[in-house]
Amino acid sequence: MIQSSTLTIQSERLHKRIHDLSQIGRIGETGVCRLALSKEDYEGVQLVKSWMEEIGLTARVDDYGNLIGRLEGRDPTLPILMLGSHIDSQPYGGRFDGSIGVLGALEVVQTLIEAKFVPEMPIEVVAFCDEEGCRFNKGLFGSRGMMGRLEEGELERTDKQGVSRREALISFGCDPERFEESRYPEGSIGTFLELHIEQGPVLESKGAQIGIVTGIAGPLWLTVEMIGVAGHTGSVPMNLRQDALMGAAKVIIGLNEIARSEPGAPTVGTVGSLSVFPDSRNIIPEKVSFTVDLRDIDLDRRHGLEVKLANLLEDTAAEHGLTYTVREDTNSESRYCAGWIQDIMREQAAELGVTPPELMSGPFHDALVLSYYCDYGMIFVNSRAGISHNPQEYSAPEDISLGTELLYRTVRELASKLQRGNSSE
Amino acid sequence: MIQSSTLTIQSERLHKRIHDLSQIGRIGETGVCRLALSKEDYEGVQLVKSWMEEIGLTARVDDYGNLIGRLEGRDPTLPILMLGSHIDSQPYGGRFDGSIGVLGALEVVQTLIEAKFVPEMPIEVVAFCDEEGCRFNKGLFGSRGMMGRLEEGELERTDKQGVSRREALISFGCDPERFEESRYPEGSIGTFLELHIEQGPVLESKGAQIGIVTGIAGPLWLTVEMIGVAGHTGSVPMNLRQDALMGAAKVIIGLNEIARSEPGAPTVGTVGSLSVFPDSRNIIPEKVSFTVDLRDIDLDRRHGLEVKLANLLEDTAAEHGLTYTVREDTNSESRYCAGWIQDIMREQAAELGVTPPELMSGPFHDALVLSYYCDYGMIFVNSRAGISHNPQEYSAPEDISLGTELLYRTVRELASKLQRGNSSE
Repeated sequence: MIQSSTLTIQSERLHKRIHDLSQIGRIGETGVCRLALSKEDYEGVQLVKSWMEEIGLTARVDDYGNLIGRLEGRDPTLPILMLGSHIDSQPYGGRFDGSIGVLGALEVVQTLIEAKFVPEMPIEVVAFCDEEGCRFNKGLFGSRGMMGRLEEGELERTDKQGVSRREALISFGCDPERFEESRYPEGSIGTFLELHIEQGPVLESKGAQIGIVTGIAGPLWLTVEMIGVAGHTGSVPMNLRQDALMGAAKVIIGLNEIARSEPGAPTVGTVGSLSVFPDSRNIIPEKVSFTVDLRDIDLDRRHGLEVKLANLLEDTAAEHGLTYTVREDTNSESRYCAGWIQDIMREQAAELGVTPPELMSGPFHDALVLSYYCDYGMIFVNSRAGISHNPQEYSAPEDISLGTELLYRTVRELASKLQRGNSSE
Repeated sequence: MIQSSTLTIQSERLHKRIHDLSQIGRIGETGVCRLALSKEDYEGVQLVKSWMEEIGLTARVDDYGNLIGRLEGRDPTLPILMLGSHIDSQPYGGRFDGSIGVLGALEVVQTLIEAKFVPEMPIEVVAFCDEEGCRFNKGLFGSRGMMGRLEEGELERTDKQGVSRREALISFGCDPERFEESRYPEGSIGTFLELHIEQGPVLESKGAQIGIVTGIAGPLWLTVEMIGVAGHTGSVPMNLRQDALMGAAKVIIGLNEIARSEPGAPTVGTVGSLSVFPDSRNIIPEKVSFTVDLRDIDLDRRHGLEVKLANLLEDTAAEHGLTYTVREDTNSESRYCAGWIQDIMREQAAELGVTPPELMSGPFHDALVLSYYCDYGMIFVNSRAGISHNPQEYSAPEDISLGTELLYRTVRELASKLQRGNSSE
């Protein structure tokens, strides 16, 4: 464990802010419900904005609902070094998902300011609007907005109470008619860094406090339907059956083997949803529909595994006398973190005396959107038992502090690139 | 194929009756909806009753709704030789299920009468009330009733329109207050024979027109719940998962192997119903609940397989870090057809020049109830593709005729046991 005396950032201040923000929309002792563009979200944004202003940033909420605090650079015309994440939550969420990325970035910038460090380029701390997507069923709204990637009809999406996103934005104080003014022109952002909880158990399993992210894995999402022949469970002998559930069971197990086929690879393959027709205890399943989720940071390897999956379906259907259809629902590419940023993180971690494991991210983050506009890097913080989107979500304060410290050192290194040699460091 | 000239029964008459009965409650070209105790069922019962009377039987509808036609024997005090099945149908049923057993028995008795054959014992042809059980969700009503096996609250069961069985019986002309009078005292039935469609594909797969049933297999019905740990499909590495659906898939495949483990045995094992929680494409399944249906005519063998299944559950749960529960919903014993009746059927079939395959019945029949009161035998007729409970249900007329002929010869042999030697045959 790193001693807190080794850290440059001020842990106590960081954790007080995390605690204070978690009181807005609190559920029970440890939960949070701060839905995007809600009253609670507004309160949260105003609180963080006040902290930004307190430490000397110029803060504003743009027309997409993003909160942006700016520390001017030596050269204001240089591409921005952007840091951030989100503070909106799932309906039954936790205190750390998103928030530590915003408040960690704030702590980083405050520490820079207190050290009288003036960055070469401007640094912006952003709390992106509606990363979670649970209210209007489409997430990454603020980051997509500022990058000009909104899709048609997004403002007309409604929540469960019938409130449209347009209405929600307006009551949040945003003006959808002025979206253009909140856009970031191409090239205006140089680098993006995000600190986030892992939302998975890899770091915990390795006994690591933090990790360096190698990229965000693009998922392949399929819906498979296998069709056999129904029949009475008592009267159709085993060797005459065309049982669709037998086929599906073999594919579930085969997909698992495919995902594990390269030892050490971070590939994951899952059947998460499945339904049986007619779903009666004394009728042999005629039709089984199930989802496939296949992810790999290495897209070439994933493509290879897709071929194996196609063969598995073909062979299984043939073996059990089934027909099948496959629908592709999503096919995203992987987005890699910049190697040079990972190098800096590795060096800075070594100076701190830690060797963070390197791992891919399965879930999406705002960084995914930013990856199309600039180089990006991510730091993960150990999530207990990998639980998130739940009040049980937990990351230890010392792990969050260490992740924030690594973010600080990475930012400082990045922001002093042009002045290296002149730096007093 | 047996030439119809070889047959003693009159095929044309039999098929005309099957056709005429199928017009009552007809759906489309080939379907039938004749729910128990409905207007259509009443019409059907009245039509069959008129045929019984036409050929010289004494016919009555008892207070359970059973239609009974009696041919007096040389000694009216001897235990009855009972023949029959049912004429009620599934809501979207076929023309043959049940009906061929009643109309086949009627044809058998008419042929006996025309041959001036007087049986030693009385012969009764019965159309049992509500074998299917789909209206009040509990079947084999009439046969259980006359054997004194009704359970508490049966008359209070209601159909989808809120009509109770008691009300339905009364409007059918029955008097539930007089049930006792319709009971058959112990020992009053000597033998029961039932002709029925197979409702499975075994005979078709063997190219056989008819088969001799060895018994009705008792099912073991279980509900299994396997419980693992949910997690994000993108962030939990394969080797750290406790995926409940992986466990269920292995049990599905393992159950199949268990059911096939003794080559040539008629064991069947099926998972027909399954549900996943939370059933989301990007969440690893936390809980999977599924049914197990295991049947075998040999109860000792089935017990052995149950032990294998218990081990399979234990091993699979351990392998995947799951917990599980097993609930026993039904555990019925098998009921064997009398060996001496099967012997007579085999001999009579040989005289006809056929060697019917011997097979167990997975589905229940009225014969299951009768099996607790007397020796019983069953003849199965080839069902195209094993389909039943559906308008597509089909059995070829020549196969039904052959089954009826075998029933006729078996009855004649049984009914002349006491007069063997005096017979002109």
